Amino acid sequence: MTEPTNLQIRLVERPVGLPSASNFEIAEGPLPEPGPGELLVANRYLSLDPAMRGWMRDARSYIPPVAIGDVMRGGTYGEVIRSNHPKFAEGEAVVGLLGWQSHAVSDGRGLTKVPGEVPGPMALGVLGMTGLTAYFGLLDVGRPRPGETVLVSGAAGATGSVVGQIAKIGGCRVVGIAGGPEKCAWLTDELGFDAAIDYKAVDDLPAEVRAACKPGVDVFFDNVGGSHLEAALGAIRRHARVVICGAISQYNAQEAAPGPANYLSLLVNRARMEGFIVFDYEARYPEAQRALGGWVAAGKIKHREEIVDGLRNAPAALLRLFDGSKRGKLVVRI
Amino acid sequence: MTEPTNLQIRLVERPVGLPSASNFEIAEGPLPEPGPGELLVANRYLSLDPAMRGWMRDARSYIPPVAIGDVMRGGTYGEVIRSNHPKFAEGEAVVGLLGWQSHAVSDGRGLTKVPGEVPGPMALGVLGMTGLTAYFGLLDVGRPRPGETVLVSGAAGATGSVVGQIAKIGGCRVVGIAGGPEKCAWLTDELGFDAAIDYKAVDDLPAEVRAACKPGVDVFFDNVGGSHLEAALGAIRRHARVVICGAISQYNAQEAAPGPANYLSLLVNRARMEGFIVFDYEARYPEAQRALGGWVAAGKIKHREEIVDGLRNAPAALLRLFDGSKRGKLVVRI
Repeated sequence: MTEPTNLQIRLVERPVGLPSASNFEIAEGPLPEPGPGELLVANRYLSLDPAMRGWMRDARSYIPPVAIGDVMRGGTYGEVIRSNHPKFAEGEAVVGLLGWQSHAVSDGRGLTKVPGEVPGPMALGVLGMTGLTAYFGLLDVGRPRPGETVLVSGAAGATGSVVGQIAKIGGCRVVGIAGGPEKCAWLTDELGFDAAIDYKAVDDLPAEVRAACKPGVDVFFDNVGGSHLEAALGAIRRHARVVICGAISQYNAQEAAPGPANYLSLLVNRARMEGFIVFDYEARYPEAQRALGGWVAAGKIKHREEIVDGLRNAPAALLRLFDGSKRGKLVVRI
Repeated sequence: MTEPTNLQIRLVERPVGLPSASNFEIAEGPLPEPGPGELLVANRYLSLDPAMRGWMRDARSYIPPVAIGDVMRGGTYGEVIRSNHPKFAEGEAVVGLLGWQSHAVSDGRGLTKVPGEVPGPMALGVLGMTGLTAYFGLLDVGRPRPGETVLVSGAAGATGSVVGQIAKIGGCRVVGIAGGPEKCAWLTDELGFDAAIDYKAVDDLPAEVRAACKPGVDVFFDNVGGSHLEAALGAIRRHARVVICGAISQYNAQEAAPGPANYLSLLVNRARMEGFIVFDYEARYPEAQRALGGWVAAGKIKHREEIVDGLRNAPAALLRLFDGSKRGKLVVRI
């Protein structure tokens, strides 16, 4: 298999508010050459994730920002097409953070092999960073117990949908917050959520959350922040756990959004709010992937991916993370 | 010992903003009679605590609000003057929540005996609810390790000053935030804090906190909320613990104060923010009191009390919790 050029998408300016195509440039160059101990990967799929908005921001965070002029960071699924590395053979499939480009040279660090039967979008989604985020965030940080009530925001998203299904497997009552009737129907009719709240259709989200989560929320898995976090804090029970996975409502804010005004609910309810980063759990990825793979194979975790064709369309597709229009895991076929 | 009347201070209206004398009425009535299995306590000292502002509010909380017309709730130290209870004898000293009154009948529940050699203000302060709050909040929720940096807001307060000294005993580096040079000097010169920040004298509290807490805050014990909480969240290290003990900056706010805008620092730093209520630890009070008593006896924990004379002066004295003028634990001699 030969490919004449390396297609790359580079960050050329930092977005103010929503990202736009002008933040990126498309470049083509010669294929890179793997040196001794290195391998060349042809990327087949690129994962699009809300966290990317944070990586574009010039701020101290859990990972350095993408530098201006650099290839945009992103999770990838690809095929090893040349290898000078003893542990990787041509033809093997790998996932890693190889970026928004058609090819990449790697020394193997941070790459994980994927069994041949796992499709690329699944390897990036339910069995990849998305599913791992759900697994560790819910089970290690949220620690739900059977019979407890788990509330998930962004519940129809790639991570939220897996969170809710893992909670159901664990014997919890699960309520999701999502935007629009189609997403809510998917949660309750297909994924087995006990209830879903269409935040776009309700006037009083805190009241709806309280009503749907009686006698209260034991674990809140937050992907959204803002009014969703406040609504959940207003409905937590004693010893609740609030898992801070993300805050997609705030990522494009141009001014600091106000924090949760009712955070003292944590005091009144002796509750815990805790953030986490999935990368910290790398040593335990195999455990999680075995569990997730088993649940998917058994039909206990359903998933859907939306696939955008063409790396050149990635900048435009990125916006779909923020407008509520995508369904499930968003992946670019390179 | 005979006392002709029972002097009571009752809540007659809920404060809007700061409490005022008009929220209370002073009443005198006959001494109550202890029935079978009951005892009569002559209260000697009343503890004044920021939490009282919350008890005056008509809102769902960890404890029901004080009802209009009821004796105001408060921690008390008193002497058993009549007893029909098998476990309490006349002359014994007890602490409990017997309220803003000179006498109270009790069935013994919630009362704890105090050894005769412990002065009342200490039994309510460093060895009472205040010290217990510091002990369990820091050690059980904050869980500092030797060498870590512990930041305390309201550090010259009755609870904060004990928090910092327990952290020093545990081998931590301790930084306090307090208002005014006298309080700050007391922290560093008398109590052994490593540094103190006078929030009233600095222009940029977040920058001062970052500078004083390099390389970052491992445990933040928050009594204040608001800008103090935001400054601390801006300086936390990975895996930090933020202990929510109180938010005195917000208790008298007439509109919901904004929450911490930078709460996503919890995510970036994989940090935990957790509230607690000291009453949950009642079964372990003896353990804590033994430890605190030992540290006080060894001179490792210093404390100061400010004593206001006369129960009738309690409403005015309550305000001193919020104006920054009191020094250490505020107690009313009844």
